[in-house]
Amino acid sequence: MVTRTVDLRSDTVTKPTEAMRAAMASAEVDDDVLGNDPTAFLLETEMAKIMGKEAALFVPSGTMGNLICVLVHCDIRGSEVILGDNCHIHIYENGGISTIGGVHPRTVKNNDDGTMDIDLIEANIRNPRWDLMYPTTRLICLENSHANSGGRCLSVEYTDRVGEVAKKHGLKLHIDGARIFNASIALGVPVDRLVKAADSVSVCLSKGLGAPVGSVIVGSKNFITKAKRLRKTLGGGMRQIGILCAASLVALKENVGKLESDHKKTRLLADGLNEIEGLRVNPCSVETNIIFIDIEEGSRTTAEKICKYLEERGILLLQDKSSRLRVVLHFQISSSDVQYTLSCFQQALQIENGN
Amino acid sequence: MVTRTVDLRSDTVTKPTEAMRAAMASAEVDDDVLGNDPTAFLLETEMAKIMGKEAALFVPSGTMGNLICVLVHCDIRGSEVILGDNCHIHIYENGGISTIGGVHPRTVKNNDDGTMDIDLIEANIRNPRWDLMYPTTRLICLENSHANSGGRCLSVEYTDRVGEVAKKHGLKLHIDGARIFNASIALGVPVDRLVKAADSVSVCLSKGLGAPVGSVIVGSKNFITKAKRLRKTLGGGMRQIGILCAASLVALKENVGKLESDHKKTRLLADGLNEIEGLRVNPCSVETNIIFIDIEEGSRTTAEKICKYLEERGILLLQDKSSRLRVVLHFQISSSDVQYTLSCFQQALQIENGN
Amino acid sequence: MVTRTVDLRSDTVTKPTEAMRAAMASAEVDDDVLGNDPTAFLLETEMAKIMGKEAALFVPSGTMGNLICVLVHCDIRGSEVILGDNCHIHIYENGGISTIGGVHPRTVKNNDDGTMDIDLIEANIRNPRWDLMYPTTRLICLENSHANSGGRCLSVEYTDRVGEVAKKHGLKLHIDGARIFNASIALGVPVDRLVKAADSVSVCLSKGLGAPVGSVIVGSKNFITKAKRLRKTLGGGMRQIGILCAASLVALKENVGKLESDHKKTRLLADGLNEIEGLRVNPCSVETNIIFIDIEEGSRTTAEKICKYLEERGILLLQDKSSRLRVVLHFQISSSDVQYTLSCFQQALQIENGN
Amino acid sequence: MVTRTVDLRSDTVTKPTEAMRAAMASAEVDDDVLGNDPTAFLLETEMAKIMGKEAALFVPSGTMGNLICVLVHCDIRGSEVILGDNCHIHIYENGGISTIGGVHPRTVKNNDDGTMDIDLIEANIRNPRWDLMYPTTRLICLENSHANSGGRCLSVEYTDRVGEVAKKHGLKLHIDGARIFNASIALGVPVDRLVKAADSVSVCLSKGLGAPVGSVIVGSKNFITKAKRLRKTLGGGMRQIGILCAASLVALKENVGKLESDHKKTRLLADGLNEIEGLRVNPCSVETNIIFIDIEEGSRTTAEKICKYLEERGILLLQDKSSRLRVVLHFQISSSDVQYTLSCFQQALQIENGN
Repeated sequence: MVTRTVDLRSDTVTKPTEAMRAAMASAEVDDDVLGNDPTAFLLETEMAKIMGKEAALFVPSGTMGNLICVLVHCDIRGSEVILGDNCHIHIYENGGISTIGGVHPRTVKNNDDGTMDIDLIEANIRNPRWDLMYPTTRLICLENSHANSGGRCLSVEYTDRVGEVAKKHGLKLHIDGARIFNASIALGVPVDRLVKAADSVSVCLSKGLGAPVGSVIVGSKNFITKAKRLRKTLGGGMRQIGILCAASLVALKENVGKLESDHKKTRLLADGLNEIEGLRVNPCSVETNIIFIDIEEGSRTTAEKICKYLEERGILLLQDKSSRLRVVLHFQISSSDVQYTLSCFQQALQIENGN
Repeated sequence: MVTRTVDLRSDTVTKPTEAMRAAMASAEVDDDVLGNDPTAFLLETEMAKIMGKEAALFVPSGTMGNLICVLVHCDIRGSEVILGDNCHIHIYENGGISTIGGVHPRTVKNNDDGTMDIDLIEANIRNPRWDLMYPTTRLICLENSHANSGGRCLSVEYTDRVGEVAKKHGLKLHIDGARIFNASIALGVPVDRLVKAADSVSVCLSKGLGAPVGSVIVGSKNFITKAKRLRKTLGGGMRQIGILCAASLVALKENVGKLESDHKKTRLLADGLNEIEGLRVNPCSVETNIIFIDIEEGSRTTAEKICKYLEERGILLLQDKSSRLRVVLHFQISSSDVQYTLSCFQQALQIENGN
Repeated sequence: MVTRTVDLRSDTVTKPTEAMRAAMASAEVDDDVLGNDPTAFLLETEMAKIMGKEAALFVPSGTMGNLICVLVHCDIRGSEVILGDNCHIHIYENGGISTIGGVHPRTVKNNDDGTMDIDLIEANIRNPRWDLMYPTTRLICLENSHANSGGRCLSVEYTDRVGEVAKKHGLKLHIDGARIFNASIALGVPVDRLVKAADSVSVCLSKGLGAPVGSVIVGSKNFITKAKRLRKTLGGGMRQIGILCAASLVALKENVGKLESDHKKTRLLADGLNEIEGLRVNPCSVETNIIFIDIEEGSRTTAEKICKYLEERGILLLQDKSSRLRVVLHFQISSSDVQYTLSCFQQALQIENGN
Repeated sequence: MVTRTVDLRSDTVTKPTEAMRAAMASAEVDDDVLGNDPTAFLLETEMAKIMGKEAALFVPSGTMGNLICVLVHCDIRGSEVILGDNCHIHIYENGGISTIGGVHPRTVKNNDDGTMDIDLIEANIRNPRWDLMYPTTRLICLENSHANSGGRCLSVEYTDRVGEVAKKHGLKLHIDGARIFNASIALGVPVDRLVKAADSVSVCLSKGLGAPVGSVIVGSKNFITKAKRLRKTLGGGMRQIGILCAASLVALKENVGKLESDHKKTRLLADGLNEIEGLRVNPCSVETNIIFIDIEEGSRTTAEKICKYLEERGILLLQDKSSRLRVVLHFQISSSDVQYTLSCFQQALQIENGN
């Protein structure tokens, strides 16, 4: 019988802390669609400051944050966006930028570290003056940290260089910063510096920061004015959001500091897993709080079997492919959880491999 | 100096009650995008049951609720929807069904009571088999109660007849039921009976029911499965929404019963306003919690001046046109607030008319 | 057995004349997508001059002409267009401006003469600065002559006044001028004067002017540059269109002058039909080449029966409703065809009414 | 002074032959939007038969042909299409499937021979049952011959295998067959056999076949019914298209047989160019009528300079990149033109390289 739960499916599973619950229970609120919620105002002001941008807007999810940012930058029919072929916007957001927004994606290969080669980015920019058959590139999207590369971080130098390419060609730069605080902590670079080159950033509050619901997008005042209208169109305008914003303010105050510890535990778990026969973790890829675990060829077990074995022991994780698993750490995973997870993995492999 | 606030701008301004705050603070939650939030499950199950439909889905706003419903029913390119020319979807939702969803609206005149003539609805249905130049009508939308007609209610007989027309032509029927509980109470008809003919209904929890955030859409299981995917596309998939759903459950339990009293206070206020020289309220139009106040021609004052005068005395309301004001009542407006509002209106008119 | 055909279904049925066929057979052509077709250049230059605009573009159809014009003026997501509820774009073009272009239509009632009340137009303009829930009006569309009102003409004074409203609010004005030459002839106003207030006009060459295929849109150079790109996107970029443009040049040279005679024959036919017992034609409505024929209430016959009777005698026309027929004249209908049509109508009514 | 023109920019530059002009001048026509054009009927019947499909539809361009096919197969919101990252639809059609159609493209790497690895195709298919965040793959697109790979051909075996993958996953298969007759001739496989696995094919008549304007799409009757409606929406419904269809019938009768000779001349030119010092043509890549010419690294000349030199001598061709040129042959290029082109190329290189 399961006596504990170790939820490693994602850092989105973090549950609100007592401090957040208290803050929500006593939050000052008003109708934010009418523009009056004071706690939303506090959060948006705070986030704009932290990110070093003029203005900010609370949105229900990271997906809506990215969707709004891409669509505001690409508000003219016939726009094209350059983005990584393995990035979250392209893979995990239902193709919404096209199916809802009519924006044409032009993917560039994501390297193992989440970057795209800068000369490839530049080679893919298309200008309608060159050819009547080309859409108009208006935006480049980066993702930092980059989830599908295992949470690796884009350096400030890389980001700045992409920003220069964007500026040179009159394009905008958006950063999907769902886990930008993880990148900032891992790189030791202040978050506002890390996104300095970006015209917009979407930041998730309900992943490693632990707020129950919400993301914030930041950019210029003019950008946020347009974003607010589009948020309403999409149905993301909500009423007494001070409730949610209060929890987010606690998340910013209390939980950013916990990410460093998350990364350490992730490193411990990754190293431990890599030592288990039949499993392989690329040590280079573990920079923040995500681990991809490959099952070595020739192993008698499968990702599915391991998932099942662990689930019976209260450990939840996601299968990425037939021979790959993904675990994501967060502040509600303790060192003891890490040890427990490691030993369960060991058993799972031993049984299958008949040792 | 203002010592009290009487916020009559909308019933969306209702603030969460102590019971809601307590419920939010102790709500059991999980990641609803991963499908596990138990409180969301409770709310959706409860709402489906109340509305007499198979399934339900929590969404961030009424606008998203309507957008999802229209787009799911009109999921094939080239769809047309028949809806009132004065309805909320057509007027106040940014034209999202077209600009985001590519659905072509075909408006039919809304009568003063919020209905559309049924023969006009039928005459506007277009079938592509008839002509290569026609889009395909796939949906009829009603709104009950109908905000822009002053909150008037569509009877169950009317709704059923529109449902029959829809069925006869193979169309779906959606009801924008943002204030369907107001209609149910005012008509004395159980809400599930009132929406029996509908294939989908969107119901707002953050208007007269007082929850801080959220709407629920209901329909068949198959419909809700599609709606869930589209909610994700639009960015309405949120994580620990049990927080918001807990408040919504309180709203359903405690506040539906308060609507009757809201309607009585609305009637009192309407009658009182109608007696003030220079103002006119159509008594027939006041069926629920909304009042449109017309300033009589020849009056020396304007809607803008009255708004300003009242605002200085803590009474907030919206100007609809140059000579029209709108007030909306809710359970956080007391009988004393109604009296205070009436006397301030009287003063506003007396001063202007030089009495 | 039918010995003659009188095709009154539309003026689109006109067949290319011998002069057109000769012109097509000897047209100088090149690849117009590569920008080199000399005959297209001639036609576009000529049309721009005739219409008094900077530039022109050949397009495959009037529907594409209107679609391109609306979409170029409304190239920003969230646009709304004001247009008549009975106009061709709204009724007969598959809702393409929404379903393909994502533009939200806001219809204003078309009066019997094809106009919309100018104060109603102005009252329906919506500016996003006023409300977060409003799309942005960017365009007003007129139709001249107005097909569904029976080909009635908008005066130059009316058009100018709508142009002033558009200018005052920063909007564009598009005229669906599929039959603008009919209007010009009927009003006795040069066509460039008639469309002076418009930012774009689409003109059909394959209706009363008799060219086999094509329309031309006109506007500013900048507008046409954008239109050319969108034409390519929609698949309207064609190769050796000099063939079609050669026929169009003949149409402009030889057939504009024939419209006056078309109108006279239309008037003759209308008057004759109105004298037939059981039929009614509103004499006011017959200004150009279209007649709507109403079957009087109480008549024993129907539109369908009359259609069938006439079809057996080689006369083709369209049924508009159960008790309404539409006939459209063109230069390939002779005076003798008109007399033949009248006598067949008479017989059709006599038989049915048992005389 | 230029005394001759050798237009190698594309096979779209072919001009109508005398036979085509005669056919156009005497074509029997009627209004095809009303469904009556007899020559369109002949052409569509003939093409359906040739391609081995139930039905066919004439469209103004290959771009519209592809756009209609993709959009009809992906007529439900939230659709994704798998296509080559170097294919015509993705690169040269303005991103219309997204910007006009809201379809999300998922590109797979095009190999040098125009194929995509079949296991990669399969790995990129996404089924919404698997994940709430995935769009639904509904279509695979191939291009045969494949323009951007130099006109290389997809074998019938390859096409069949992709068809099996499509069928296995419930997807449709579309072939952009703009130059499918070139592939058929080069492979020695009847064209109907070559596209047997496809649910739709678009075939261009105004490329190597020499018709002035138009493409034809083929598929099932049900598919073509939907396509006809969408053609009207896009503005591709045209009136007396018998004119254009008459030329197309001549193209089919007289010019398919000329493609073999085009290919031979292309081979001659390619071999000759490859022998010129400083130029390089991959002999494997020349299978039909297209040649990509690379300027070797270290050469003192550039693509731009060569283009200019040749243009002054009446030879037109397109620059693909800074060091790459593209030439396309067609039946209006004679053997003498090939020799002339070769000698001009030789001179261009000699001068630049100072020999």
